[in-house]
Amino acid sequence: MSFPSSWINPPRQPGMLYFEQAAQRQSVLTKPAGSLGRLENVAVQLAGLQSTNTPALERIQISIFVGDHGICEEGVSAYPQAVTAQMIGNFANGGAAINVLAKSLGAGLEVVNLGTISDDLPDFPHIIDARIAPCTRNFTLANAMTSKQVCTALNNGDAAAQRAASSGCQLFIGGEMGIGNTTSATAIACALLSKNPMQLTGPGTGLDTAGVRHKAEVIIRALQRHDSDDDLGPTEVLEALGGFEIAALAGAIAGCAARSIPVLVDGFIVSVAALIAVNQQPEIRPWLLFAHRSAEPGHQAVLTALNAEPLLDLSMCLGEGTGAAIAVPLLRLACELHNNMASFADAGVSTQEDIVND
Amino acid sequence: MSFPSSWINPPRQPGMLYFEQAAQRQSVLTKPAGSLGRLENVAVQLAGLQSTNTPALERIQISIFVGDHGICEEGVSAYPQAVTAQMIGNFANGGAAINVLAKSLGAGLEVVNLGTISDDLPDFPHIIDARIAPCTRNFTLANAMTSKQVCTALNNGDAAAQRAASSGCQLFIGGEMGIGNTTSATAIACALLSKNPMQLTGPGTGLDTAGVRHKAEVIIRALQRHDSDDDLGPTEVLEALGGFEIAALAGAIAGCAARSIPVLVDGFIVSVAALIAVNQQPEIRPWLLFAHRSAEPGHQAVLTALNAEPLLDLSMCLGEGTGAAIAVPLLRLACELHNNMASFADAGVSTQEDIVND
Repeated sequence: MSFPSSWINPPRQPGMLYFEQAAQRQSVLTKPAGSLGRLENVAVQLAGLQSTNTPALERIQISIFVGDHGICEEGVSAYPQAVTAQMIGNFANGGAAINVLAKSLGAGLEVVNLGTISDDLPDFPHIIDARIAPCTRNFTLANAMTSKQVCTALNNGDAAAQRAASSGCQLFIGGEMGIGNTTSATAIACALLSKNPMQLTGPGTGLDTAGVRHKAEVIIRALQRHDSDDDLGPTEVLEALGGFEIAALAGAIAGCAARSIPVLVDGFIVSVAALIAVNQQPEIRPWLLFAHRSAEPGHQAVLTALNAEPLLDLSMCLGEGTGAAIAVPLLRLACELHNNMASFADAGVSTQEDIVND
Repeated sequence: MSFPSSWINPPRQPGMLYFEQAAQRQSVLTKPAGSLGRLENVAVQLAGLQSTNTPALERIQISIFVGDHGICEEGVSAYPQAVTAQMIGNFANGGAAINVLAKSLGAGLEVVNLGTISDDLPDFPHIIDARIAPCTRNFTLANAMTSKQVCTALNNGDAAAQRAASSGCQLFIGGEMGIGNTTSATAIACALLSKNPMQLTGPGTGLDTAGVRHKAEVIIRALQRHDSDDDLGPTEVLEALGGFEIAALAGAIAGCAARSIPVLVDGFIVSVAALIAVNQQPEIRPWLLFAHRSAEPGHQAVLTALNAEPLLDLSMCLGEGTGAAIAVPLLRLACELHNNMASFADAGVSTQEDIVND
């Protein structure tokens, strides 16, 4: 198996025409200039990325990537590792937060199982079986993945982007579930951004202060293992420290950009996957919108590195793509305002310039 | 005409039972404790205020109060005063931002005309004619309103709350339109909070730096007129500095609290009306939710005084209730998550405690 072409080649860049036309339209709508704040920027961005004068978000695809982490051996999570597979059952039965949100938004939802420690999972409908291994390896002892596993996970992500493209998806949301994955994501962020794990490590699903400290020490130990490996590229960082679901997310993000599908990036884990993808192909960055600032402390460093300012800051840290899903109605309303408000001329309303001519 | 009883008497306080039951339910849903962040608090708050285990926001009423301001004589706005009446036409024809949002949300929308300088308005359908006078008086020269006008405006607001209650409204949003009304609102905020107008005055619909400075000087001059009137009560502050629509909003907020309808507070102007109402009856405060932080600089001081932390911060400053409308889908999704997620027990998912017993 070879890397997806979306991993090897940069995506096309969106043209400027529709951005410019959308900005022009915002300036003639019946409101003081700029008074819709970030909703104006979002509408202009979506118009430009969708190459249209009437941006729309009717067809949204949410893909949740699930995988288990060998690093859990080090006691880095507040929850037992069995929860990863149990949550696949919860996704299949519609009881998780992202199920409720996807249903309410009318968004497509699929769950991709990249491998969990439970081999006795029933054959759930709606769960895509893409199992690579029961879990990654403990990355304090060895590389988390083989290079072949990384390649497989990237292809699994690219396949999700292809499915989204085939369904006419106008916005893609990637989500994740995997006990231990904030440890992997934090290690990757520290490696790519040359940050101290003591600064970026957070509680994940609910560690106490001692637990966070232990988790940071585990990450420091893991990074020391790779100290001699100068200048690891993004693919090699995935191999050393990544999770199956983080690699798949990076592949999905690259795959969406390659197919001109805007991506709404969720919280900490997905932002780390986006950071990897943008490190791999900087031309991916224009295709990304950022939904929310996670309560996980490492997120801000990743957002800063991506020059991203998310729309929401609601102290969420659930994962599953929930922070991105919550932002969807704002994006939809931004599009509706852009498409349906009257202009000053249409409505016979005076503009700011008219007072000068009074 | 006498003051509405909602202005004279405190509202009943919501009981604790449903708040407690909702908080308990949040703790057993299949997510790490607290990981839905502020969405959890919002669901608990709505359950408590609606006295239900299944909070819902199907029936939302948006009432826009419109009035002109005599203070515009002092050159305090970037837009000509004629825009107030022109925007009534835009509301009637469905072209304004709040029309687009209300339609998308399936919310009821009414516009209450409390008086504009244009006396040649056509007889629009869907616009409630509650004209008090063509505009308030220039409050650098005289009280903005007579005490009778304040009373009439408060009753107009209370009547909107009564209409909302009659329609089974589950959440009320007040909005406003009135060229010059950030000047009135800023003056009120400075009077009630003993703040310096140089600190709180902002650009409103788009003044430049010199314009903001002039506006602050106008407010300073107005406040000096009232220097001898120590300890003005909220009703007297409305009389001295208020707009018709700000008084009506204060009346609507008090009227909703009196009828046990939660109020989602919009931006700067509506927050000032809420500050007046809470000054009048502190028991109103628990009935208020705060939607967004406006770009208008005075807003933060008002929010701080109300001990309010809004959900959104999108650099919006349009008015019309738009900032509150944008927050509605978040509140709805918070309710759906609360009502429809599976519990750990239902889903067979291990809890954080299970790792301790492993």
